[in-house]
This record gives sequence, structure tokens and C-alpha cells, in this order.
Amino acid sequence: MNKQELIRQIQEKKTFLCVGLDTDIKKIPQHLLTEEDPIFAFNKAIIDATAAYCVAYKPNLAFYESMGVKGWVAFEKTIKYLNEHYPNHFIIADAKRGDIGNTSAMYARTFFEEMNLDALTVAPYMGEDSVTPFLQYPGKWVILLALTSNKGSQDFQLTCNAEGERLFEKVLRKSQEWSNDENMMYVVGATQGRMFEDIRRIVPNHFLLVPGIGAQGGSLEEVCKYGMTKDCGLLVNSSRAIIYADKSEAFAEVAAAEAKKVAEQMAALLG
Amino acid sequence: MNKQELIRQIQEKKTFLCVGLDTDIKKIPQHLLTEEDPIFAFNKAIIDATAAYCVAYKPNLAFYESMGVKGWVAFEKTIKYLNEHYPNHFIIADAKRGDIGNTSAMYARTFFEEMNLDALTVAPYMGEDSVTPFLQYPGKWVILLALTSNKGSQDFQLTCNAEGERLFEKVLRKSQEWSNDENMMYVVGATQGRMFEDIRRIVPNHFLLVPGIGAQGGSLEEVCKYGMTKDCGLLVNSSRAIIYADKSEAFAEVAAAEAKKVAEQMAALLG
Repeated sequence: MNKQELIRQIQEKKTFLCVGLDTDIKKIPQHLLTEEDPIFAFNKAIIDATAAYCVAYKPNLAFYESMGVKGWVAFEKTIKYLNEHYPNHFIIADAKRGDIGNTSAMYARTFFEEMNLDALTVAPYMGEDSVTPFLQYPGKWVILLALTSNKGSQDFQLTCNAEGERLFEKVLRKSQEWSNDENMMYVVGATQGRMFEDIRRIVPNHFLLVPGIGAQGGSLEEVCKYGMTKDCGLLVNSSRAIIYADKSEAFAEVAAAEAKKVAEQMAALLG
Repeated sequence: MNKQELIRQIQEKKTFLCVGLDTDIKKIPQHLLTEEDPIFAFNKAIIDATAAYCVAYKPNLAFYESMGVKGWVAFEKTIKYLNEHYPNHFIIADAKRGDIGNTSAMYARTFFEEMNLDALTVAPYMGEDSVTPFLQYPGKWVILLALTSNKGSQDFQLTCNAEGERLFEKVLRKSQEWSNDENMMYVVGATQGRMFEDIRRIVPNHFLLVPGIGAQGGSLEEVCKYGMTKDCGLLVNSSRAIIYADKSEAFAEVAAAEAKKVAEQMAALLG
């Protein structure tokens, strides 16, 4: 999906919500455990219930990989289901990959060619040749980690270089030499508050993928105040607060109600 | 496997070779494609042929993931085979993971509890809480990316901070607050030459995992000259130069001969 299409989806649906499919077999409703593939059954129900209130889905691969082969089967079925039934939703694999060129190229082939995902999160530590193999696919996106939502973001991302530039700022600046706002977004945690101002000075037009509202405590209002552009420029993710809002047989309806609540806040913030 | 056991294996076998199982369906001998699981058949043959000349195996997960579910099946079979038949070999999943705490914890459970791997490569960008969940398992290791073998290592890893410390040096120094030389190693590319001197000033006793000899052009002699400790302190990886040395039916024998050649150089360098 290209940038114009994504902006149009946001404008039409008046939401910039991304629902995080961090599906954990230990947290899904008990009654689903009798299903042939409980993880896929859960995802399908959550997707069908929330699709009207979001523009994107983001399965975090760690949750699927932690279940081994079964997890990969559920992941692939989920992506196939999204591609077939919700072609207007933007699909992000939260994978945080990044390896030497030939290895990154293999990841790119898997996620973009075979699975037809729209975007992949990538870690910047290994630099240009670990990122550029992902940029060869029109309409596909790299979402580069810039300033993450966790406490450990302070350990290296905020390190100031001799020129007074912090590492996340260098990542934002340097990566623009390889890419543009039609094929790259950045991960910025909702917990970073006013730092969005600093980020917008360097990337005024890029989309940002923002995790960390809900369970991690970030504020949607603050993110919008300091991070929103005229085209919105934000995909704000919520995982646990939506998908695990309820564990009864009504879990999907409750998830829909939670997603709707966030979408209504978003509609107001879009103005 | 703990540090003393690893050192003993190196001393007994007079080799510190790690064979990289970067198995690509497009590069394995044609005659294996008729096997039920060509990837596992290839790995099994390579492992049986090279086990005498190495102390470690390192499958790079990207190669397996790029084949989807089939790839994961082959990966799990390979790990199971290694655990059952070669319990004295050190098994590294080259995964370059790193995510927020609860996600890293799920990865740790998968790789250390379920698969019984010895070590996992981890990217440092997200800081302490993305790494520490992997450090809770006795005898298991984090191998943190420090100074990688690729060209892109220059983009961020060499960035000097206001105190004159380069990012990879800060990673080495800071991570010692969370770990020690019994549960952490560092990735340092063989292509980095004399930089090993700088690294040894900060981590004089840690093991280093060194990719980049062979196809990537690093020098084994130089790595040993500047990076070896009295306990060896090195696991030097070779992938393509060994496993794809030949594509005929004799591929495993040729791989064994290549591994033996490297092991003989290593024996001489161990003195």
C-alpha cells in the first residue's frame, strides 16, 4: 500500500489505529483452546470485530515464533486471511530484523514477495546494507526503530555524539540518505511525549508507528499534539488493551468496543 | 554449556571453528531436492561430516524463516539432531533478536527452554530490558552485536559520543552492568582487523563470536593476533566457504575437508 492510499484510508475511516496481534496462547479465552488452531481462531475473531475501527494490523512475530512450527502456521494463516478479506488494511510484521545484506534480502523476499505484507520493522544497528534490501519493493515499507517505548531506549538511543546529535536523531537523518517518506516510517514510542517535537524537526512528513499507548502508559493526546502532521502521519498501535480486554465468549465484541472507543478519540483528534 | 566446558572442548579438539548452517534451498546440491526434507538432509550430512573439526554450529534463522513453515520444521529438526547426537557442540541461533521485555522473554523461553539452544544473537539498540530476559538461564548465553562485519557497521556503530567513546564501545561497556563473561559474548566481524585490540581493552576475558572469514574476506591470522586470549576467547564462524564448497554428491566430504583445513590453521594458531 502506498502513502496516498494509506492517507485516504485514514481520512475515510477517521482512525489511525493499528491493532497489535500479540497473540499469546496463555492469554486467549479458554473456550478457544478446543479449536483446531486456537491462535488463528482468536486472530480471525479479533480482526473481524475490529476491522471497522482500524487501518492497520501488526502481528508481533515473537509471539508466533515462541510456539514454533504451530505458531508459524497460525501467522501465515492470519496474513492470508487479512490479504483475502481486508485488502485495504495495512499489514505490518513486527519482526525487528536487521542482518547483513544477503540475509536481509532473504527476509525481504519472505515478507514482501511470499507473504505480501506491507511493512516490516527493522533494527538500525547494522546500518545501510542491512536496511536497503527491504527498500527494493514498490509500495512496501521499512519501519525503522528510532526511539522505542521501553526503558532501555535510554541506554543507547539517547547517546549524544560529538556534534550534539543523539543516536536516534542520527538514525532518522542518516536513513533518509537511503530512503524517503514513501518507503520508510519510524518507530517512536508513545511514552516519549515531547520528544515527538524533536523527531518532527528531522522527519516532518514521515509516518511514525507509535506503540506504547494502553498497557505501556503512553498518552494518545500527547502523541497527537507533538507528532501529528497535516496528513495525520501516525499509526498508533494498541495491542493488549484491545485484544485482551475480555476473556469470556464475548471477547471479540468487547475488543470491538475498546477499538471503537480509541477510534472515536482519534476521530476527534483528527478534527 | 558453561564457559569452562566450552574452553575444554576447544582445548581438547584444538579448534574454535563454528560452522554456520546458512542453508539455502537454492544453493544445496541438486540431488538432495528429492529428499522429503532437503534442508534437514543437507544439514545432517554437513554436521556429521564436520563435527570433528568444529566446536559450534550456528544456523542463521533468516534462511529458515524465508522458507516459512517448512523452514521452521527443518530448523527444529536440525536443533533436535544436534542436541541428541552432538551434545558437546555449542549451538547458536543467529537470530539478532531484541524487543521490549515481555517479548524478549517469550523469545528466551522458545530458544532456551523449548529448543535447548546454548546461545542467541541479540541486537543492542533497545537497551537493557530487551537483553536481560535472555540472561536468566544458567549455562545459556546472549551474544550481543557489537561491531559487525558488514559495511553498514560504519553508519552507527562507530559514532563517537561526547566523551570520545564509540557506540560499539559503549555497548561493550554498558552491557557489562547487566552480565558477565559467563553469560555474554559479543559479535565482532573478522573484517574489523586491528579493532580487536580496542575491543580487548574493554572485554579482555569475554568470548567473541567472529563471522566474516571466508566469503566476507576477513583474516583468521589477524583475528587471532589481536583478539585471542589465553583461553582462546574466540569462536570463529565460517558458513558459505565450508557448506557450499562443493555441489556434487561428494559435498559433505568436501565440506569436511574445508573444515579440516580451517581447524588445522586454528590448531597452529592455538600453539
